[in-house]
Order: sequence, then structure tokens, then C-alpha cells
Amino acid sequence: MKVARVMGAVVASIRDERLKGLKLLLLREVDAAWKPVGMPFVAVDTVGAGPDDLTLVATGQAACQTERTQGLPIDAAVVAILDLPEAKDRGR
Amino acid sequence: MKVARVMGAVVASIRDERLKGLKLLLLREVDAAWKPVGMPFVAVDTVGAGPDDLTLVATGQAACQTERTQGLPIDAAVVAILDLPEAKDRGR
Amino acid sequence: MKVARVMGAVVASIRDERLKGLKLLLLREVDAAWKPVGMPFVAVDTVGAGPDDLTLVATGQAACQTERTQGLPIDAAVVAILDLPEAKDRGR
Amino acid sequence: MKVARVMGAVVASIRDERLKGLKLLLLREVDAAWKPVGMPFVAVDTVGAGPDDLTLVATGQAACQTERTQGLPIDAAVVAILDLPEAKDRGR
Amino acid sequence: MKVARVMGAVVASIRDERLKGLKLLLLREVDAAWKPVGMPFVAVDTVGAGPDDLTLVATGQAACQTERTQGLPIDAAVVAILDLPEAKDRGR
Repeated sequence: MKVARVMGAVVASIRDERLKGLKLLLLREVDAAWKPVGMPFVAVDTVGAGPDDLTLVATGQAACQTERTQGLPIDAAVVAILDLPEAKDRGR
Repeated sequence: MKVARVMGAVVASIRDERLKGLKLLLLREVDAAWKPVGMPFVAVDTVGAGPDDLTLVATGQAACQTERTQGLPIDAAVVAILDLPEAKDRGR
Repeated sequence: MKVARVMGAVVASIRDERLKGLKLLLLREVDAAWKPVGMPFVAVDTVGAGPDDLTLVATGQAACQTERTQGLPIDAAVVAILDLPEAKDRGR
Repeated sequence: MKVARVMGAVVASIRDERLKGLKLLLLREVDAAWKPVGMPFVAVDTVGAGPDDLTLVATGQAACQTERTQGLPIDAAVVAILDLPEAKDRGR
Repeated sequence: MKVARVMGAVVASIRDERLKGLKLLLLREVDAAWKPVGMPFVAVDTVGAGPDDLTLVATGQAACQTERTQGLPIDAAVVAILDLPEAKDRGR
């Protein structure tokens, strides 16, 4: 699973029928100092993650193995929030 | 899902039988400033996206989970258009 | 799908039984100027592509969704040839 | 499979129901000198790996093909520990 | 499929039950001059490849479509050896 920080929510009025009602988060993977790097991507939230949270993101078909996401046209889902005391203060 | 900007439509007279009739878009992923980066790629449009739109692209098997794309030999589908007011003006 | 230019055919006398009889092409992805970049890779041809053609390559399980490629141990298939007038002259 | 070194265990109090009880490891891929490079990622441990171990990580659906991981929302599992005498001393 | 050169065999005493008895190879992808680049990875051998061979590697679920590899927790399998006369002399 990717380790990625939540940058914010995504607003998309026009979306596939099966994506309606889902909470979409914008995230970026982090480097070894927990600093966001690389290109932003979007994942479906399944655990109540919010801005700045450091999360685990399941990708590919794994994203459709949670109770809320089966059969959806998604390739990424936030499946956990990491407990790293220093995560919110380091790497900014 | 990837966040990618539409660069234009793709014309491909010679294509697999199962790809006929599909609208193919040329896209590029964007960086944190919504500027196109990386190599261009092609996705099937399912939401009516057009040039310069900032879109969400489902990849891998997720691309075949929309109503129009099941069982097709495709690995990417545009499944949403982002509402980012600044998206068309920033990062060019 | 990847946008990739055909570099040539691949000769592989020793290959898995299920790959016998397939035409294998060596390709490289292209950048925004259609110039080959990145590492070469191999895909099964399903549309009669030849050297220098700019093609669409379906990857992952999508590569096994064409009529000729079902159930094969392949992760990439050429599924279309792009009609880009400038494609053969630019980016070399 | 990826070759990756174990950086430590991951603590995640908030996680998808199906991830509960699983041991999650933080890893980084290594270069040709076995030195950790690239972005950290997380995998489920299936072989009892510990800090500094050099491991094999199965990704994608392969991660769900071990006895302990079937049907889980995971995309990476540690499936072996490498016997490289020099692995713990080189590339630091 | 990736084009990758065999760097050697992998010894892993501790491995998932379903990986026992399999020959694991350490490989690296090659650039356009057939020179190894990028991070090393491991694949299951299905064609009798040896050190320095330039091979084709099927990734993802394709790796489980050969006769020997069905249902295994693997994401990469060597499925062919390339006949490139110059492959052993160039790019070193």
C-alpha cells in the first residue's frame, strides 16, 4: 500500500454514476521524511481521513475489496490512518 | 485515480474491433500546480470530457467497471471531471 | 493505454508454449513531442503494426481482452495504430 | 516481486475492518547495492520478517494469493526473506 | 512485457509455502542499449534462463498464466529468452 498524505477533498460534479456519493480525497505519496512528493492522485475514503492525515492507500483491485467499494470503477482507496506522532510536524 | 488534463482527441483508424465507436482522449498527468507532466497516455471517455478539462482517470481493471466499458481491452477510463475554479488558469 | 512507438520485431526462440505463434514487438513510450523515451518493452501485436508506427498499447489484464490474446501470459498488447500526420517526422 | 528492506512496523489504529490483526511493515525498495531508495510503502507480513531484513514483496493481486491474505484489501505482501550474507552490511 | 537481464539466482530459505520449489531469478530492466538500469526485481523462471540472458518478463496477473505458475503469489515470471546476437556484448 502507498503511504500518502491527504491534501484535501476533491469536488467533481460530473462523475460516473457509480462514483456518486463517494468521498474522494486528493493525496500525494510521501518520501522517507514523510514529505509529499510526486504527482497528486485521488482515492476513495473508507476510514474518515481528513486534511494532513498520513494514510495507507490500497491500489488496483485491492481498492475494491473493502465493504463500501466492491465493483466500483476505482483503483485507489484509503484503508487506514497511520499513528505517527511526528507525522504532522515533520517533512513540511 | 490519476489526475490528468485532456490534451485532445485521438484518431486511430486501425484499432481492435472492441475499441470501435469509443471516444479516445489523449491526456497527461498533472503536478501539484495542475501543470501537465510525464508521458502522454490514452483513456476512454465516459463523462463527456473535452480539451483542457482536468479529469479523474481510473486505471487497470477499474477502467472496465463503468457501464460503457465492461470487457473491453482498455486500461484507462475518464470517470469524472474536476471542479477546480483555478484549474484552467494555473500551471500553464 | 500507453502511447508507444514500434522499434522493431522481437526474436525469441525460447518462449513459453502459450507465446508460440505470437508476433512480439519491441516498443518505447513517447513524450509529448512523440519522441521515444524510457525503457523498451514488448507487446503482442493484434493490429498489424510495423516499425516506426505510433501505437496504443493496452497493459495489464486489458492485454488479454482482445480476441487473439485471451488467457495468455502477456501484460501488453498493441490494440490500435494512431493517425498522427506528423507522428513519423517529429520527435526524432 | 520487489526486493525491499524492512524499515519497521506500522501502527495504524484506524484501519479497515479486514485489515485488523494483520502485521503491517514499512519497506523501501533497494538499488543494485541493496541500498534503500524510492518512496516508502507498506506490505502485510506473511513470513515473520523484521527490521533490516531484505525481503521479496508480491504486489497487486499476487499479494492476495497467500494463505493468510485471500480477499483482503491489500496490494503488497512480504512472501520471502532473502539469504544475502552481505545484505545487512552493504549499501547503508 | 519487461525486457530484463538476469543478474543471478535468488536464495530465500524463508518463503511462503506456495513459493517452495520455484526457481527465483534476480533481474534488472535494460535501457535501449540493453544496459541494466533501475531497481533489481525478482521473477519466477519458466524457461530455463541463466545469468546474463536477456529475457521477457510477464508482470501482474499475466505471471500466473503459464502452466507452472497458476494460483501462485507471484507478480513476475520469465516467459521467454531473447535472441539478440549483440545482447551479451553491448551495453555493459
